Amino acid sequence: MTHKILVLPGDGIGPEIVAEAIKVLNVFTAEGSLSVEMEYANIGGAGYDAEGSPYPASTQTLAKAADAILLGAVGGPQYDNLDRPLRPERGLLAIRSDLELFANLRPAILYEALASASTLKPEVVANLDLMIVRELTGGIYFGKPRGIDVMENGERKGYNTLVYSEPEIDRIARVAFETAMKRNKRLCSVDKANVLEVSELWREVVERVGKEYPAVELSHMYVDNAAMQLVRSPKQFDVMVTTNMFGDILSDAAAMLTGSIGMLPSASLNASACGLYEPIHGSAPDIAGQGAANPLATILSVAMLLRYSLNKGELAERIEVAVKKVLAEGIRTGDIYTEGCRKVGTAEMGDAVVAAL
Amino acid sequence: MTHKILVLPGDGIGPEIVAEAIKVLNVFTAEGSLSVEMEYANIGGAGYDAEGSPYPASTQTLAKAADAILLGAVGGPQYDNLDRPLRPERGLLAIRSDLELFANLRPAILYEALASASTLKPEVVANLDLMIVRELTGGIYFGKPRGIDVMENGERKGYNTLVYSEPEIDRIARVAFETAMKRNKRLCSVDKANVLEVSELWREVVERVGKEYPAVELSHMYVDNAAMQLVRSPKQFDVMVTTNMFGDILSDAAAMLTGSIGMLPSASLNASACGLYEPIHGSAPDIAGQGAANPLATILSVAMLLRYSLNKGELAERIEVAVKKVLAEGIRTGDIYTEGCRKVGTAEMGDAVVAAL
Ligand SMILES: CC(C)[C@H](C(=O)O)[C@@H](O)C(=O)O
Ligand SMILES: CC(C)[C@H](C(=O)O)[C@@H](O)C(=O)O
Repeated sequence: MTHKILVLPGDGIGPEIVAEAIKVLNVFTAEGSLSVEMEYANIGGAGYDAEGSPYPASTQTLAKAADAILLGAVGGPQYDNLDRPLRPERGLLAIRSDLELFANLRPAILYEALASASTLKPEVVANLDLMIVRELTGGIYFGKPRGIDVMENGERKGYNTLVYSEPEIDRIARVAFETAMKRNKRLCSVDKANVLEVSELWREVVERVGKEYPAVELSHMYVDNAAMQLVRSPKQFDVMVTTNMFGDILSDAAAMLTGSIGMLPSASLNASACGLYEPIHGSAPDIAGQGAANPLATILSVAMLLRYSLNKGELAERIEVAVKKVLAEGIRTGDIYTEGCRKVGTAEMGDAVVAAL
Repeated sequence: MTHKILVLPGDGIGPEIVAEAIKVLNVFTAEGSLSVEMEYANIGGAGYDAEGSPYPASTQTLAKAADAILLGAVGGPQYDNLDRPLRPERGLLAIRSDLELFANLRPAILYEALASASTLKPEVVANLDLMIVRELTGGIYFGKPRGIDVMENGERKGYNTLVYSEPEIDRIARVAFETAMKRNKRLCSVDKANVLEVSELWREVVERVGKEYPAVELSHMYVDNAAMQLVRSPKQFDVMVTTNMFGDILSDAAAMLTGSIGMLPSASLNASACGLYEPIHGSAPDIAGQGAANPLATILSVAMLLRYSLNKGELAERIEVAVKKVLAEGIRTGDIYTEGCRKVGTAEMGDAVVAAL
């Protein structure tokens, strides 16, 4: 079976890091363990530059036909003065919504070899391995009504709507419980049920879905406490599930606990397991084009792609093992470099992973 | 001039810690440097138990007449099954809204003597001293419409409204700039302007107010990045200003960076500098009534009360110096105890501060 993969290099360091990830995919196609058809398209600033839109129609067509999508990164200072609907990140929001990629899986894993990069004490984060399941196509990101209106007194007010329906909560809860079943069977649902009606419904529906997963130990936590607990004792968590906005905040905090956001991949899935895979770091315009960026988060995104969309868990694992091996050998890009290691560029790092495979 | 202070001990450890804070106030009244009239009233679970409401009318009347309010803490497991409008935290939300306490000042200060309590590496948090200015009476906490409705298809949806008007943003921005002027003149406004219209307006108004404070260096940061940066390098911040919900999350994360939330006070002010002062920690039902709670956050809340509502900055400083002295002497309640220190109870800690004064 040949899988269709759409590659969206995007902006800044996007093209460089994606190129290394493709090298890794090519290892599997060359050895015959994988058959893929690859297409390339534009997104973000690259989409705007080439086709006048951060999510061009041509990209949309290819995206809808793909089994999985690999994305580099979007954004750059040259786009800061564009009208909001034309800015790079709107391309990202558009493709998420268009393909209904409602389940964003964001692991925060501390690689032993990089433990010292964390700003937290070693004992607090050693072996950290948590998974945040963030709802990605609903909530306040997409809720209506939204806008800026002039009030009767001539002053303006801005407003957005946080809204979740039962089916939206139900489906993300299921992904979270399924994820927990494959891990340590503990799920913490994060909300603000002491203040928000949305959260009351969220909690009720998560509880209800939980009845179907008696093996999973379910807990609930208010979002402010969750932010605290991530700093205080992150290893208490196995899987966390939450809304789009809370997930945006908490997953970035969780990622930073590891100290190496250049290492962290993500997956955004829809109901038919088509997925968009991307590193969680940004487009790093300051080092773009220098061959200095860390491609490992993108390479690890390929591992997630293989696992979740192509059902090739064993290939995913081979990538993950190879990355650990490369790290254990002391090979480092600048962002994760420490004394005594060997500093390499983007392509050398990609080659090192290929060699380790 | 005699100042009217309303004391709201609340629930759990509230009464114990408030009693120690009052001892400290009494030092000043005894020496003649302060004249106060104190009243006591119920709030939270105590309000519900005594008068059937978490914010009884009698409390409201006294609150409206007060120059400043000192609150212990609210909440306890015995209230978890009450209808939401009757729960303890609703009392807190009600008094904030009723007195228009729109400006919540939440310092995150790392006390040198307690540096080892932080889960972060010493060099990352040494001398941390940041102030979060959180909008407290608007945003999604109070926005309408809100509720849970049944949709046409029979499923329910929950919704809340995030809304800010120009005047609401303007007034909190002013408090933030004024706060920055008294500190290191750096202000970081946190929003999600790449996604939310409310944030676009927020950013525009903060910029406009900033024109009147050319001495303050203003920056803007997306909330996800702010959560990251607090973990990565919290000392980059002097003052942060943000919405009610983002402030709830970020200020708790910031507090936890210090490792000693038993030490952190807060102030919630309205336009006429009447304020509600409370420790940021909760009611700790597990240790309530044991005389083991740390009263220092409440004592430091009295310092904020003296500074912001009673204009007695010199008395506030005396409290702050006394607290540092007590810590330097190695006196510790259980929550901040480390080997080699002297462990004391709530009352002894209060007495130690009084002695140090
Ligand atoms: C770029 C931005 C719109 C996006 C988001 O807020 O979802 C990003 O922060 C992310 O988490 O992928
Ligand atoms: C108890 C709760 C309603 C409250 C809030 O969310 O504002 C608390 O978390 C706080 O920060 O004071």
